[in-house]
Amino acid sequence: MSRVLVIHGVNLNLLGQREPEIYGVATLDDINRQLAATAKGLGMELRVFQSNSEGEIVTAIQTALGWADILLINAGAYTHTSLAIADAIQGVSLPAIEVHLSNIYARESFRHQSYLSRVCVGQICGFGANSYLLALQAAAHLLQSRSAQREVR
Amino acid sequence: MSRVLVIHGVNLNLLGQREPEIYGVATLDDINRQLAATAKGLGMELRVFQSNSEGEIVTAIQTALGWADILLINAGAYTHTSLAIADAIQGVSLPAIEVHLSNIYARESFRHQSYLSRVCVGQICGFGANSYLLALQAAAHLLQSRSAQREVR
Amino acid sequence: MSRVLVIHGVNLNLLGQREPEIYGVATLDDINRQLAATAKGLGMELRVFQSNSEGEIVTAIQTALGWADILLINAGAYTHTSLAIADAIQGVSLPAIEVHLSNIYARESFRHQSYLSRVCVGQICGFGANSYLLALQAAAHLLQSRSAQREVR
Amino acid sequence: MSRVLVIHGVNLNLLGQREPEIYGVATLDDINRQLAATAKGLGMELRVFQSNSEGEIVTAIQTALGWADILLINAGAYTHTSLAIADAIQGVSLPAIEVHLSNIYARESFRHQSYLSRVCVGQICGFGANSYLLALQAAAHLLQSRSAQREVR
Amino acid sequence: MSRVLVIHGVNLNLLGQREPEIYGVATLDDINRQLAATAKGLGMELRVFQSNSEGEIVTAIQTALGWADILLINAGAYTHTSLAIADAIQGVSLPAIEVHLSNIYARESFRHQSYLSRVCVGQICGFGANSYLLALQAAAHLLQSRSAQREVR
Amino acid sequence: MSRVLVIHGVNLNLLGQREPEIYGVATLDDINRQLAATAKGLGMELRVFQSNSEGEIVTAIQTALGWADILLINAGAYTHTSLAIADAIQGVSLPAIEVHLSNIYARESFRHQSYLSRVCVGQICGFGANSYLLALQAAAHLLQSRSAQREVR
Amino acid sequence: MSRVLVIHGVNLNLLGQREPEIYGVATLDDINRQLAATAKGLGMELRVFQSNSEGEIVTAIQTALGWADILLINAGAYTHTSLAIADAIQGVSLPAIEVHLSNIYARESFRHQSYLSRVCVGQICGFGANSYLLALQAAAHLLQSRSAQREVR
Amino acid sequence: MSRVLVIHGVNLNLLGQREPEIYGVATLDDINRQLAATAKGLGMELRVFQSNSEGEIVTAIQTALGWADILLINAGAYTHTSLAIADAIQGVSLPAIEVHLSNIYARESFRHQSYLSRVCVGQICGFGANSYLLALQAAAHLLQSRSAQREVR
Amino acid sequence: MSRVLVIHGVNLNLLGQREPEIYGVATLDDINRQLAATAKGLGMELRVFQSNSEGEIVTAIQTALGWADILLINAGAYTHTSLAIADAIQGVSLPAIEVHLSNIYARESFRHQSYLSRVCVGQICGFGANSYLLALQAAAHLLQSRSAQREVR
Amino acid sequence: MSRVLVIHGVNLNLLGQREPEIYGVATLDDINRQLAATAKGLGMELRVFQSNSEGEIVTAIQTALGWADILLINAGAYTHTSLAIADAIQGVSLPAIEVHLSNIYARESFRHQSYLSRVCVGQICGFGANSYLLALQAAAHLLQSRSAQREVR
Amino acid sequence: MSRVLVIHGVNLNLLGQREPEIYGVATLDDINRQLAATAKGLGMELRVFQSNSEGEIVTAIQTALGWADILLINAGAYTHTSLAIADAIQGVSLPAIEVHLSNIYARESFRHQSYLSRVCVGQICGFGANSYLLALQAAAHLLQSRSAQREVR
Amino acid sequence: MSRVLVIHGVNLNLLGQREPEIYGVATLDDINRQLAATAKGLGMELRVFQSNSEGEIVTAIQTALGWADILLINAGAYTHTSLAIADAIQGVSLPAIEVHLSNIYARESFRHQSYLSRVCVGQICGFGANSYLLALQAAAHLLQSRSAQREVR
Repeated sequence: MSRVLVIHGVNLNLLGQREPEIYGVATLDDINRQLAATAKGLGMELRVFQSNSEGEIVTAIQTALGWADILLINAGAYTHTSLAIADAIQGVSLPAIEVHLSNIYARESFRHQSYLSRVCVGQICGFGANSYLLALQAAAHLLQSRSAQREVR
Repeated sequence: MSRVLVIHGVNLNLLGQREPEIYGVATLDDINRQLAATAKGLGMELRVFQSNSEGEIVTAIQTALGWADILLINAGAYTHTSLAIADAIQGVSLPAIEVHLSNIYARESFRHQSYLSRVCVGQICGFGANSYLLALQAAAHLLQSRSAQREVR
Repeated sequence: MSRVLVIHGVNLNLLGQREPEIYGVATLDDINRQLAATAKGLGMELRVFQSNSEGEIVTAIQTALGWADILLINAGAYTHTSLAIADAIQGVSLPAIEVHLSNIYARESFRHQSYLSRVCVGQICGFGANSYLLALQAAAHLLQSRSAQREVR
Repeated sequence: MSRVLVIHGVNLNLLGQREPEIYGVATLDDINRQLAATAKGLGMELRVFQSNSEGEIVTAIQTALGWADILLINAGAYTHTSLAIADAIQGVSLPAIEVHLSNIYARESFRHQSYLSRVCVGQICGFGANSYLLALQAAAHLLQSRSAQREVR
Repeated sequence: MSRVLVIHGVNLNLLGQREPEIYGVATLDDINRQLAATAKGLGMELRVFQSNSEGEIVTAIQTALGWADILLINAGAYTHTSLAIADAIQGVSLPAIEVHLSNIYARESFRHQSYLSRVCVGQICGFGANSYLLALQAAAHLLQSRSAQREVR
Repeated sequence: MSRVLVIHGVNLNLLGQREPEIYGVATLDDINRQLAATAKGLGMELRVFQSNSEGEIVTAIQTALGWADILLINAGAYTHTSLAIADAIQGVSLPAIEVHLSNIYARESFRHQSYLSRVCVGQICGFGANSYLLALQAAAHLLQSRSAQREVR
Repeated sequence: MSRVLVIHGVNLNLLGQREPEIYGVATLDDINRQLAATAKGLGMELRVFQSNSEGEIVTAIQTALGWADILLINAGAYTHTSLAIADAIQGVSLPAIEVHLSNIYARESFRHQSYLSRVCVGQICGFGANSYLLALQAAAHLLQSRSAQREVR
Repeated sequence: MSRVLVIHGVNLNLLGQREPEIYGVATLDDINRQLAATAKGLGMELRVFQSNSEGEIVTAIQTALGWADILLINAGAYTHTSLAIADAIQGVSLPAIEVHLSNIYARESFRHQSYLSRVCVGQICGFGANSYLLALQAAAHLLQSRSAQREVR
Repeated sequence: MSRVLVIHGVNLNLLGQREPEIYGVATLDDINRQLAATAKGLGMELRVFQSNSEGEIVTAIQTALGWADILLINAGAYTHTSLAIADAIQGVSLPAIEVHLSNIYARESFRHQSYLSRVCVGQICGFGANSYLLALQAAAHLLQSRSAQREVR
Repeated sequence: MSRVLVIHGVNLNLLGQREPEIYGVATLDDINRQLAATAKGLGMELRVFQSNSEGEIVTAIQTALGWADILLINAGAYTHTSLAIADAIQGVSLPAIEVHLSNIYARESFRHQSYLSRVCVGQICGFGANSYLLALQAAAHLLQSRSAQREVR
Repeated sequence: MSRVLVIHGVNLNLLGQREPEIYGVATLDDINRQLAATAKGLGMELRVFQSNSEGEIVTAIQTALGWADILLINAGAYTHTSLAIADAIQGVSLPAIEVHLSNIYARESFRHQSYLSRVCVGQICGFGANSYLLALQAAAHLLQSRSAQREVR
Repeated sequence: MSRVLVIHGVNLNLLGQREPEIYGVATLDDINRQLAATAKGLGMELRVFQSNSEGEIVTAIQTALGWADILLINAGAYTHTSLAIADAIQGVSLPAIEVHLSNIYARESFRHQSYLSRVCVGQICGFGANSYLLALQAAAHLLQSRSAQREVR
């Protein structure tokens, strides 16, 4: 049974309250419930973490080492300013998937650059809460195909 | 029954032959078969189009008007150089989802800028052939929720 | 009797359907009819060409050599990305006038740079379909004054 | 009867003397006479203003408020350096048409950027003195179609 | 009685000790006492928060929701590097005033760019501790005029 | 009794008429009356100057030498294009306070750069007409504390 | 017997007519005849392709797979704007030599950047029609030395 | 007897008062007296003009046409912001020499760029008031050698 | 006996686990033991601090005031993104030495810029764990020579 | 009999030892022998010069004046940093051909810019030692066709 | 009797031969003779040095220490690429005057930036050989006024 | 016994005379004596080389091949302008350590970029003469650990 750590970054605890025309009306609890249901359906074990602190997110990624098989991360605004989080992902050598509720490339130009993309397997953005669910499916598929490859060898 | 036009852009007909370490071993026919199966499962009607010509892709998008409910587009290298394709998407006012096999943001810097992102709903990249299947699911979900919203009104 | 080739570039066949708040409600046929009437009034012979393909536009310009006295060109999005069309204009050594329906300098910054301006006599933009008619008058005036200069010599 | 204020900016009083290979041999008086004749033909009332002073041009635009229906402006070198004139145009909320004798986009790169374009309806450049006459026709057409729209409503 | 949350960001707890030729000799306690006195005079309720942690500042802004009517924020160096704090201000949809002790635009160029300005009503900088007091008056005035507008409607 | 010269730059004579959603409905006379009342309350002598001409503003600053103790300046668009005004402020060696009605850092990027900031003590922007009144208080406070310092020595 | 595909890109069919002071008086047929003679002398089989269409050039490169041992390509203006052609070259994994009639680095700055250089073995430019003949010799030498290396292994 | 127009630009009337550590203690009258004496010694006729207004400087240059043989110009801060003055110099087709009291290339980077250099024969900067006297000698020498060349022909 | 505070920044607690080909196999405990031994040999008192939080690092630097004579800092990824840490170092006015395990200037370009360099005495990078030991010797030497200078005075 | 000066720049004396995977195993002597043989076959007289000193290369180019008919130059790293060598080539007004062993446009970006290209007839790069031999043939062809043109006149 | 070292940099030994339309027909010997005559008239002792080698120019500047009172330097192309020469000038702490035959600011943009300007007193450019003579006069005047200032003290 | 070549670049022979507030009062001989003593203590053989000529430094590095085990290099200003020296270091494939007396990252921005860093193992800067001694220790440690690694294998 594969294990996923989902990391919600800065300001994502505001979801549902913050600019619903951009981020939708679902709260973080709503999303987490949907994630839990989907994970169950995919036979995956799920842990969820939210913090407004860059340092705590780094530490959460570090502590994923030994437990998680894959990371799902929506770092919020830290996507665009935190090299530290990218280094942590690279440091733990776990596959990671970058998630965004909104299409960051259709917004202000300072949101077009992501420190995380360079160290992630792939990215899903623009589908609101559904971005997370698609990412969870992508994670399941990725782990399966990697596992299949290992067996072949 | 919702209708999807999938557009494969330049050089994607080479898939399976071209740099498999980046783009995988699946051919375009393999991907199209997987897309057809998934579409069937989602109750969606599918049309697929591939061209190496920027102008033909523009025309294909224009002719989607009146038939398609949504576009899935992997424009290949035209992603980074074609304003004309972006204008076509904007011109037909259909929702579009940007797809990439590889994580373009983890490659050469000239692949980090996409003309299409600005006019697409969202983007899925980095998951190989699975990027397309996830995008199809995203499309189904998007059309459902928009339709649900319309009914409410 | 002077001869004008009018070239409508990419996505201009969508006129009337595409973003009418920017491009107006007139269709390309409407514009072509107005152009024909104006040309007749100015005693000019008119040919009209539209294509979504950069290469076909290049070929159309090349084949103007030997027939046309002047070009009117609205290349659409290719204005901003096609050096090939500019090279074709320069290659045939015919005077050309750049036309745009919208004021491209009042829109997104990537529409402020035109490859064609460097090789055109002048530019008219921002007056909707009337941009074409003004350009036709400019063409007539230009050919007359050049002809007058030649006679003097 | 619609009213037009034509503003000739800095160094345009030198016309006919200054670099005739770029700006032509017509003097400003010649151009003004042609403008007057054309205005008469179009049934428009015309006022003409020239100044080498950025501040006086600003003031002239401000005082157009209450008299003019539309502005024609060739600000000369201030086109590229004066945000103040652009603010004045925006401040009086009158439609304005940007005129240039030469094709500024085919000259030195510091002439490619115009502060005025952003706040003007459209632009005509590269046709020498005829740029002004075309602009006057564009103005007449613009006011007519706006007036037609108002009547419909 | 209107309520103000004053946020002092990173390194501001060093005030009085840190580079007094730039930041003055007043300590943060001195400033807070002056703020309290001024708030009293203006009939405003005041809360003050200081943290060296970007994440804690984000959380403090989030928790202002439901209590504060307006924010006063001097984020210190985070002004120039924190998109997360700007997103938090935008997320809570409260009016905010940016404060700086020094004139950041007269210092090193990396202090000229502020992530916060885009999401704040206005800015006061360069007057030392008095910047805060002026900002408090600006806040009082702003809330009064908004309240007056609401009553009119 | 300290003396203040208030300089209103280009287009500020349009206040109340020009884009009220950005600049408010108060006219320049309204602002001057408020300034006069506030100055009286602060025991300050006030002179007010407005010009649309960069050169006249420079001269006004030069002639402040010998009369004024401090300058309040809202240069309008010249803020972003006039090095000459900045040099004049630096040349007369009087303290100056930069004022803006709108928050220039939340507007178009070409309004983010100010030539004046480098040579001013501080800046107040974004509070409409109240920006001026706050600046007058800042000026009074600044002169008092400088005078207090001189007395101590 | 080694096989070479020579690709002439956009506007090269105009050769002899287009700007002879830059591109010389030889027509494309002249060049092709010289290439055929040289190829014969070198014991190489030659195919020649010209198109004004970016997409057709891509397709021509793709179809070289299985026939050609090496590519000679002068893409004309597409050199500077087409990532798609570069991707095609990279996709077929054939050695390619970049050819230009003129010295592109001694012309306008927008001709200094080549998308193709990154994926080509080498480049020959500035020698008019002779650039092609030199490139053919370079191709012969390259294939010989590679073949020699293979035999050694 | 050759005739020189010396143009002192913005803020130069402050000389002697303004930042003497940069610009020296000589007043503009001092410099003009030294210029007059030197001109007399060189057998040149001299006119001197100072203005703080960009527009008046433009007009002064225009009116030099027909009187002056050469221009000496220190435009002050307009050096770095006025394309209009450069256009005026180019428009009158008179040789001009650029003068600066200080070494502008050893000061702030925004003083390193001069609009005037492109249209002037040469430049002398960094020698305080002596820059003007050296420029006058340069002017005398330049006119002599041009006159000598004309005689030879 | 001089006192040194060693600050290990973000992700350095991962040492030995994280990318050993870049950062080596020594753990942070190994490095701290080596530092302790070296400090003992140099007669220096040592305190060591590690945090993944930018804010905690700032606070640690502030609290060094009154205890430490010098700082050794390897801020990890915060080197490149944290102005706040640089401000803290400048705020406490203690000499600081910048340390990096890897040669940051031979890695990705976003690691070439350091906010800390501007406020540090010097820098040692590229020698793995030995970078720290060399920095400790540099610190001892620096304090001795400063102390020697003081005694002379 | 035409005369060629071949200039090998900095570090080319290391050939065969230095990074053979980039520059090949041939030594400079090997290349010079091949050049001599080829020159003999082409009926050209050859001189070869190598130096690690920019100044000596400049002097060698200057002394070519009066002897050489054409230059072949591979300046090594000075290609990218030496304006002086480019000025020397331009100064002697001899045709020059730029040679590189490797394809400089497929390497680090700081090797993409060449000071020499602007002043050379053409360029051959990427073919190892064969680049020189091709350049020699290009030189022979160039001199022949120029000589043929002279005879015609 | 004050002593001047004149340094002629790279390619200046070509003078008279090299591009006379830019640099004039005078040879370096001509210029040196004129300099000697002028120096005699000014009562100055002169030494002249020319080298094509950056390193030799650095050494010449270093050895000026102890002999020269002032430097005149025209470094040729090294003006734009040599930080080493600028460091040498700064290192010997002698006043230096930058000289150029042509107006470098009216030529290619890579000649607009000078490493030397930052460390020189002033600059004279654009007057051909006369630039040197004017610089010698500037040097004489500078040394006199500095000497006068010293006597006063 | 390991062998070290120390290379002192341009202007370092001026040490002790040149700007002692930046570079200290020690002469190059003083530093060389300290290096000799330290080398002796570390059991290393030392050669020292200084030149003001870029070319001679390149040659010195080339001749290190076969003698030296490691390089210590302080190239002075060539650090920032010489790709040739970097290529030489890369060409000889010897480990190299970059040394600077001053902290180049705390000085003018044109000193922040080093061509050498990319090809060096590490860098030590900012500790005056002690930078060299620390670098020598770093060299000893580096050679020991590499030798230890070789023995293990």
